[in-house]
Amino acid sequence: MTSEASLRKLFKDVGHFDAVVNTVGVCEYANFTEMTEEQWMSTILSKMMGQINIIRIGQEYIADKGSFTLITGILNIKPIPFAIADATTSGAIDTFVKCVAFEMPRGIRVNSINPTVLKEAWDVYGEMMPGFQPVPGKLVGKAFERSVDGFITGQVIYVDA
Amino acid sequence: MTSEASLRKLFKDVGHFDAVVNTVGVCEYANFTEMTEEQWMSTILSKMMGQINIIRIGQEYIADKGSFTLITGILNIKPIPFAIADATTSGAIDTFVKCVAFEMPRGIRVNSINPTVLKEAWDVYGEMMPGFQPVPGKLVGKAFERSVDGFITGQVIYVDA
Repeated sequence: MTSEASLRKLFKDVGHFDAVVNTVGVCEYANFTEMTEEQWMSTILSKMMGQINIIRIGQEYIADKGSFTLITGILNIKPIPFAIADATTSGAIDTFVKCVAFEMPRGIRVNSINPTVLKEAWDVYGEMMPGFQPVPGKLVGKAFERSVDGFITGQVIYVDA
Repeated sequence: MTSEASLRKLFKDVGHFDAVVNTVGVCEYANFTEMTEEQWMSTILSKMMGQINIIRIGQEYIADKGSFTLITGILNIKPIPFAIADATTSGAIDTFVKCVAFEMPRGIRVNSINPTVLKEAWDVYGEMMPGFQPVPGKLVGKAFERSVDGFITGQVIYVDA
């Protein structure tokens, strides 16, 4: 997703498609005062520019009325230590989706899913997220389904308990 | 603001200071489907990473209880054609300010001012902003004053009519 050529090859190889769902994006975690510009930029290039690239390139190839669904995350709404780059890029993508929807051609739709921590990932992330209520991954899947098989666009779908 | 060395030199040369106000940030304007990754990145490096750099470097030098006030812009709330990179980076910085406030050391405060178009700039921007009500620059100055001389932090101050 950080390479225009790679994305272009992917979409060409796949051929006809009606929906793209993205669930990835690399984020660096550090205290703000210790986070380097390199750490900021690797997060920005992946989670932010990478997801913008998916739509920027993909909109040339996707079927009429196709949809793109991106991933953000609840830490822009509920900040925690170490997550400033994740939160900032989530805020960027949630804003991007809300604004770019108005200029998508051929009835193409764009949404983002903004979930809290997953129940399945609680063992890994639980300690850094005190007071958060994890949600089952299945519920996040429902949000993607509502974006892909629905008619909404320019929406941030929060999945939080 | 895109150069760590340049910012570091500025803050060292100035010596003691209690407040930093930033009102600049380069933005590329284009239709989303025509905007290149280079145009996205020049906007991100200036308006987004550049403003983050001001606080990232500046917090090492500013006085205790000092303040940083960044600039965003109403197009993340009221989208218009050609402004997707401006809107997305404004959303990023508004989110950044709201989240990073909690981890600033030594009582340092951070806010952003999110104004609509200025009355003084209406001749230049009016045509691309139908239905917008410009505000006098003096009112935007008041918002900066409220950030600098007040006690608020982590706030986005909207100046819109």
